[in-house]
Amino acid sequence: MKYGIIGASGKMGKEILGVFDEAQHICVYTYDVDGEAQIEAPEVLIDFSLPAAFPKTIEIVKKFKVALIMGTTGLNAEQLELLKELGKEVPVIQSFNFSVGIQLLLQCIERVKGQVDGWDVEITETHHRFKKDKPSGTAIMMKQALGRDVPVSSLRLGGVAGEHNIYFGGLGETLTLSHTALSRRTFAEGVLKSALFAAKKQSGFYSFRDVMAG
Amino acid sequence: MKYGIIGASGKMGKEILGVFDEAQHICVYTYDVDGEAQIEAPEVLIDFSLPAAFPKTIEIVKKFKVALIMGTTGLNAEQLELLKELGKEVPVIQSFNFSVGIQLLLQCIERVKGQVDGWDVEITETHHRFKKDKPSGTAIMMKQALGRDVPVSSLRLGGVAGEHNIYFGGLGETLTLSHTALSRRTFAEGVLKSALFAAKKQSGFYSFRDVMAG
Amino acid sequence: MKYGIIGASGKMGKEILGVFDEAQHICVYTYDVDGEAQIEAPEVLIDFSLPAAFPKTIEIVKKFKVALIMGTTGLNAEQLELLKELGKEVPVIQSFNFSVGIQLLLQCIERVKGQVDGWDVEITETHHRFKKDKPSGTAIMMKQALGRDVPVSSLRLGGVAGEHNIYFGGLGETLTLSHTALSRRTFAEGVLKSALFAAKKQSGFYSFRDVMAG
Amino acid sequence: MKYGIIGASGKMGKEILGVFDEAQHICVYTYDVDGEAQIEAPEVLIDFSLPAAFPKTIEIVKKFKVALIMGTTGLNAEQLELLKELGKEVPVIQSFNFSVGIQLLLQCIERVKGQVDGWDVEITETHHRFKKDKPSGTAIMMKQALGRDVPVSSLRLGGVAGEHNIYFGGLGETLTLSHTALSRRTFAEGVLKSALFAAKKQSGFYSFRDVMAG
Repeated sequence: MKYGIIGASGKMGKEILGVFDEAQHICVYTYDVDGEAQIEAPEVLIDFSLPAAFPKTIEIVKKFKVALIMGTTGLNAEQLELLKELGKEVPVIQSFNFSVGIQLLLQCIERVKGQVDGWDVEITETHHRFKKDKPSGTAIMMKQALGRDVPVSSLRLGGVAGEHNIYFGGLGETLTLSHTALSRRTFAEGVLKSALFAAKKQSGFYSFRDVMAG
Repeated sequence: MKYGIIGASGKMGKEILGVFDEAQHICVYTYDVDGEAQIEAPEVLIDFSLPAAFPKTIEIVKKFKVALIMGTTGLNAEQLELLKELGKEVPVIQSFNFSVGIQLLLQCIERVKGQVDGWDVEITETHHRFKKDKPSGTAIMMKQALGRDVPVSSLRLGGVAGEHNIYFGGLGETLTLSHTALSRRTFAEGVLKSALFAAKKQSGFYSFRDVMAG
Repeated sequence: MKYGIIGASGKMGKEILGVFDEAQHICVYTYDVDGEAQIEAPEVLIDFSLPAAFPKTIEIVKKFKVALIMGTTGLNAEQLELLKELGKEVPVIQSFNFSVGIQLLLQCIERVKGQVDGWDVEITETHHRFKKDKPSGTAIMMKQALGRDVPVSSLRLGGVAGEHNIYFGGLGETLTLSHTALSRRTFAEGVLKSALFAAKKQSGFYSFRDVMAG
Repeated sequence: MKYGIIGASGKMGKEILGVFDEAQHICVYTYDVDGEAQIEAPEVLIDFSLPAAFPKTIEIVKKFKVALIMGTTGLNAEQLELLKELGKEVPVIQSFNFSVGIQLLLQCIERVKGQVDGWDVEITETHHRFKKDKPSGTAIMMKQALGRDVPVSSLRLGGVAGEHNIYFGGLGETLTLSHTALSRRTFAEGVLKSALFAAKKQSGFYSFRDVMAG
């Protein structure tokens, strides 16, 4: 597959380059703070950058009519709406988290939420000191799965790749569901899975859950 | 309700006496290491003792034709089979754990188990230093929910009321589901809920999941 | 010992009454939202209430010239200053936490703090939903032991008796020190130890660390 | 620095090659399951392999009269004794764990151990599924710091780089000290620090604590 990356020089950008390279896909387009580089037209575009790059991403997708894998966090409601619109023209896969385990965590939240009347719920998320937005996009997905707003505590700590906890607390017991990413590679592998999924679609707005469901 | 307890002087026995007393139920029969005491015929019998008391429990249930709430852990396969037989005559509710949160934990395990091919699974359970059997009955229930045998590490630590963790580990991420009992009261409340459930039944072999489902 | 309690009907007040009663000490004075009750002059006064009761506490200590065990959290700088002054007349033992384990946690923080240059530090504290102040007094003690201000995340969750974590995060590793109170009894036992310590002193302003050191 | 590695193709071997390469040190000797390769005489030899390679390591150290950094776990008492002997001729730095955080964990254990009379202690260690020995060498160091034998539970889980917990449990509270390695890079950096330390020594048997102390 010939692919392009917005945010190629970022931590996730580098990880994606590594994983796609191992699987013998070819990077033909990059865009980041150092500028733009293009060898050929990409078949799929991956964006792991910052919300500021959003207009450029839309421009590139429309120019090449290619699938988009959108992993940038901190997007606003209007930008998410635009992505849904874009899904009418090309395949768009948007997620704040491309790991299998987070999808399982979300499923567990949905399983539990109707059975804990009167319990308190708290969420914590811990990430490396370089993460700019808070709370994490994944924490927002957790609140959406829960179906209501609850407090989120954001910790920024050394080199932690990503840890999310949700606590359900009754007066006599606590249930805790936790996910720990051991490295960014996990996410890059989910992005690859998503790119392969997107390559088979004509258009549509998809989540990583759709990718997992095949 | 008039009720009896096998194991009345144990830690769980005392907790049950407290919770049932608050709800104005009357203890009319006790049996423990100090002997037997009977005021009246019980309507329901609760057993939180040791497997050694099992024959006595069966004798009492049959003598009074009463419902049985069985919370003793460490029972063998034959004893569990006898309880199922007994369920044909009277209502029998058997569980290794009478908390709501553990039931939720088991449901999450069932939700996750088919989606983690190739991942490792480990269970840990931590209980106060006085707990005699290991692994805990709850850990056994967790393995049953998972549908396969996995390692269980048992920690015995001070006054811990009960903590269970199950870890699902992929190469790039870990999903952890944890339950902490803050006090034995949680379990005693589940026993009360079970006794009220049993009082409405003629016979049958039930789990605490059945009680929760109403 | 004849003792009095400010905040006798609160959760900690009741726990203290229980522990002191078991050790055959006699409660001769109480003060709480329902009013004041006095049988005799106390030899030591215990305050586990709210900052609003502070003037009353000072009044009682001065009236009876008795030792004070001050466990109320959320006191302001001025009130703490007044306690130090009071220590010139009677023994005053002030702590935001009367458990042995928290003292050990503080000692570990002091051991580690000079050896983690460039690492991030985060604190979390989790307490039952009824706790009114945040962050907890114990979290404040942890920051003092660390010698610098760091973020504290406060979670309020069901019936949790009290949990404190401090995370030291480097780029390649994380060190976590955690304390969990299993029940309020732990604190009440520390209060008893403090009352016995105070009974042997003429005056002075002490911490629970002094009590532990004997 | 010109260095050699025993176990060059293992997971730690590769990580060490990367970190030393970044710092512009030159690998001139390797030995592993695929054989031996030598360009020049090394100034320091690093062994992160298996106990079976121990005789070869001793042979190489003696042949080139070079410093040894020994990180292989699972060595027996006799082999450790031989290393101490070897320290009379060349600098030998032996540790089961080359991270700063583990040294801090050990210091905390030493601080706490004399103050928890009557408490229970439990250790757990979790590592990736490829780790062959159990319990981990680090868990053994933790028991040594504690000064007595306590139960160690070993979990093998997916891609976990290394996690160690020690639990101190009283009847009313629990103190937990935990270390998590986020990646093997942490250890490789400790090995580099040790190699630079060794380069300044004539002989002696050192631990990583000595390296940290400078």
